[in-house]
Amino acid sequence: MSEAHFPTRLTEGYEKFLAGRLSRERERYEELAKSGQSPEILLIGCCDSRVSPELIFDAGPGEMFVVRNVANLVPPYKPNDDYHGTSAAIEFAVMGLKVKHIVVMGHAQCGGVKAYAQLQHDPYMRPLAPGDFIGGWIKLLAPAAEKIGEPTEPLQNWSERLAWESIKQSIANLRSFPYIATLEQRGWLNLHGAYFGVAGGELMALDPSDGTFRQVAAEAHREALGGTPRF
Amino acid sequence: MSEAHFPTRLTEGYEKFLAGRLSRERERYEELAKSGQSPEILLIGCCDSRVSPELIFDAGPGEMFVVRNVANLVPPYKPNDDYHGTSAAIEFAVMGLKVKHIVVMGHAQCGGVKAYAQLQHDPYMRPLAPGDFIGGWIKLLAPAAEKIGEPTEPLQNWSERLAWESIKQSIANLRSFPYIATLEQRGWLNLHGAYFGVAGGELMALDPSDGTFRQVAAEAHREALGGTPRF
Amino acid sequence: MSEAHFPTRLTEGYEKFLAGRLSRERERYEELAKSGQSPEILLIGCCDSRVSPELIFDAGPGEMFVVRNVANLVPPYKPNDDYHGTSAAIEFAVMGLKVKHIVVMGHAQCGGVKAYAQLQHDPYMRPLAPGDFIGGWIKLLAPAAEKIGEPTEPLQNWSERLAWESIKQSIANLRSFPYIATLEQRGWLNLHGAYFGVAGGELMALDPSDGTFRQVAAEAHREALGGTPRF
Amino acid sequence: MSEAHFPTRLTEGYEKFLAGRLSRERERYEELAKSGQSPEILLIGCCDSRVSPELIFDAGPGEMFVVRNVANLVPPYKPNDDYHGTSAAIEFAVMGLKVKHIVVMGHAQCGGVKAYAQLQHDPYMRPLAPGDFIGGWIKLLAPAAEKIGEPTEPLQNWSERLAWESIKQSIANLRSFPYIATLEQRGWLNLHGAYFGVAGGELMALDPSDGTFRQVAAEAHREALGGTPRF
Repeated sequence: MSEAHFPTRLTEGYEKFLAGRLSRERERYEELAKSGQSPEILLIGCCDSRVSPELIFDAGPGEMFVVRNVANLVPPYKPNDDYHGTSAAIEFAVMGLKVKHIVVMGHAQCGGVKAYAQLQHDPYMRPLAPGDFIGGWIKLLAPAAEKIGEPTEPLQNWSERLAWESIKQSIANLRSFPYIATLEQRGWLNLHGAYFGVAGGELMALDPSDGTFRQVAAEAHREALGGTPRF
Repeated sequence: MSEAHFPTRLTEGYEKFLAGRLSRERERYEELAKSGQSPEILLIGCCDSRVSPELIFDAGPGEMFVVRNVANLVPPYKPNDDYHGTSAAIEFAVMGLKVKHIVVMGHAQCGGVKAYAQLQHDPYMRPLAPGDFIGGWIKLLAPAAEKIGEPTEPLQNWSERLAWESIKQSIANLRSFPYIATLEQRGWLNLHGAYFGVAGGELMALDPSDGTFRQVAAEAHREALGGTPRF
Repeated sequence: MSEAHFPTRLTEGYEKFLAGRLSRERERYEELAKSGQSPEILLIGCCDSRVSPELIFDAGPGEMFVVRNVANLVPPYKPNDDYHGTSAAIEFAVMGLKVKHIVVMGHAQCGGVKAYAQLQHDPYMRPLAPGDFIGGWIKLLAPAAEKIGEPTEPLQNWSERLAWESIKQSIANLRSFPYIATLEQRGWLNLHGAYFGVAGGELMALDPSDGTFRQVAAEAHREALGGTPRF
Repeated sequence: MSEAHFPTRLTEGYEKFLAGRLSRERERYEELAKSGQSPEILLIGCCDSRVSPELIFDAGPGEMFVVRNVANLVPPYKPNDDYHGTSAAIEFAVMGLKVKHIVVMGHAQCGGVKAYAQLQHDPYMRPLAPGDFIGGWIKLLAPAAEKIGEPTEPLQNWSERLAWESIKQSIANLRSFPYIATLEQRGWLNLHGAYFGVAGGELMALDPSDGTFRQVAAEAHREALGGTPRF
């Protein structure tokens, strides 16, 4: 193999990793390999290239166990013979690694959420590909869509409302896993919702007391953006 | 909501992101929100907290569409009514975003792979939880396990061989998606295998010409580790 | 039910039928109901609204047993548990009604053929609907496409060549039904290919001696179009 | 090829078409070839030679997209790898051509329906041919047969009841296609049942309000038959 086969962008990025983070955190990697991982946080996020959890939370190796699927969805608990990638990861993190927190993180301009909204709007919309896996997967958004009702606003705004409601729905689905419900009741496990704005870099967290999303570190955000409110 | 509810570690990490990357890359986030994402790479990696693709490839926002599941597995193409999270993400990346590269990245000490190896060794091994989603999910390792044969070495070493073979199997499964096979034949899409060593930070890439894994940027790696070979 | 529910166009057309054909052919319909049908011709045509076999052949009630599917395709003989609509119709016509002729009739600008050609050209083409029944059905065109080779001409022209080759392939598939092969060998059943040009109304028939399509009633066609050659 | 090879009846019929319809509607054919078809109606009818939709509705080129299979059956929605000719045609008409109406048209003395009725009556009845495609296909009548219960009347009458119930079942199966259900709910697509009597030329339409069939254009029908009621 000429190394040229492997994407140049990745080889170059890896060389930066070697000169930077690996050089600095060499012992940490060795230690993590020897003793195994013990992250406190399971983060369920979207595959979207703009919403890397490690970047947004400045997380180092060993800190977050990260599941990423389209539209950061958690299916309801439904054991059977199929391959349940997300449920398997949740089970591994909660029962194997005994994480203390689960964060479901959504974001603005989510392609999966938008696709669902458009499909409701235009029944003639064509699937991406013959297998229509996306069409099947985003059906998980249906309960959230039903809760917020028909759009009375521009589709883009309705999509954002849907993305928020869907985070709550995913948290409800997490609670349909019997052990998660038990661990949460005992206070051994905490469930959180978060939402990343992309354009302005703002982060919202779900306030469980009233079901609204409130900005996190609003002050620091204003400072980072030069004192000017951006959104 | 007191902000204390949201994990302190995450709030602090986010504040570092605000002061660091967001301050520096503010225009980039705005631009990515306006024009949408167009990553060239789909990376299929493991949820493991030690193997963040963005860290290892020093990737910024917009660069990689990232699927993360336990043991970085790709199921074979099998359209039906179930929720196929990984296949949906692949479909979205390939047919929606038209990525140019798919990288399946495995790693050393993978818990999912180890669980499969132990289960072969000890039939009394208990599932993590009643639903046994992990048990169902890692059955995807069976074809790779069959290819490498029964262990004649310590289980840990067999697990590593299994992890490597499983990357090849996932690439084969990618090719069972009809459009991926077509796009690869036309040279519009490239499939890659990669493996991260964790302990020493080494990266291996699959050489498609002979099916072996070869170290990427070996020279730079030696330099990063102070000239001393570590593994 | 107000009759308005039934499409007005159909009610009006039916009233013309009553005043016209039914008034004239009343005895024929009664006779056909009493004695049953005994058509001599099985016509396998396309669903296309521009290619009605009864119009093109000025056929009255009782004359042609007509199967119409997308792109006038005959699947190869493959008995199993599935629903084989076209094969069932062929079996009924040949073994039940003992027709003397089977005509496979294709036509210009066929949407099914065009969809196949476009899909070969653009692997990113999206299916019409989640089930992708069209995508599955037009795979029956693959053997004909392989025979004519890659397009070296505009896609539209290649599609026409494909439509012609596909008629031959359907005739070959008819011969894979064991009883059709036997009946044809004995001279009790004749297989024909035909092609309707739509734009100019020309009809071509397959010459089995050399596999080319030749115009039928060319003289009469010239006269109908006012002596001027139209294509 | 001597033209004699092509069935004389068809060549003669085609010459009538040339002298008649083509001469009159030449521009229409040219226009339909240039701009493509855009029929408003998808008609699903039987292959029976006595029940040509274009004759019964006096339809010209471009007006009806016509699927014809034995006994005008619609299979339930079931996407998989098989060749689904009827479902493909429905998908093409609804999602590709965006038709406004679907009409399922049955008729009296249907051979497919009769075969099903006889098979229930006489378990020794032999299949038409080794592949028994008809036997497999008419199993689609089973749900309708179950609904109307065992025959307590002459088999011929039971067959007619079965033909009627089967039209309703096919409409129910159309609604199992998710996009048809959605489009019907929005009022963008209308589903109809129709039944042609053959002997007397009467046409019945399904009244969705009570599930009965009512005669269409009864007055015009009486006049066409000379004022004398015929059935």
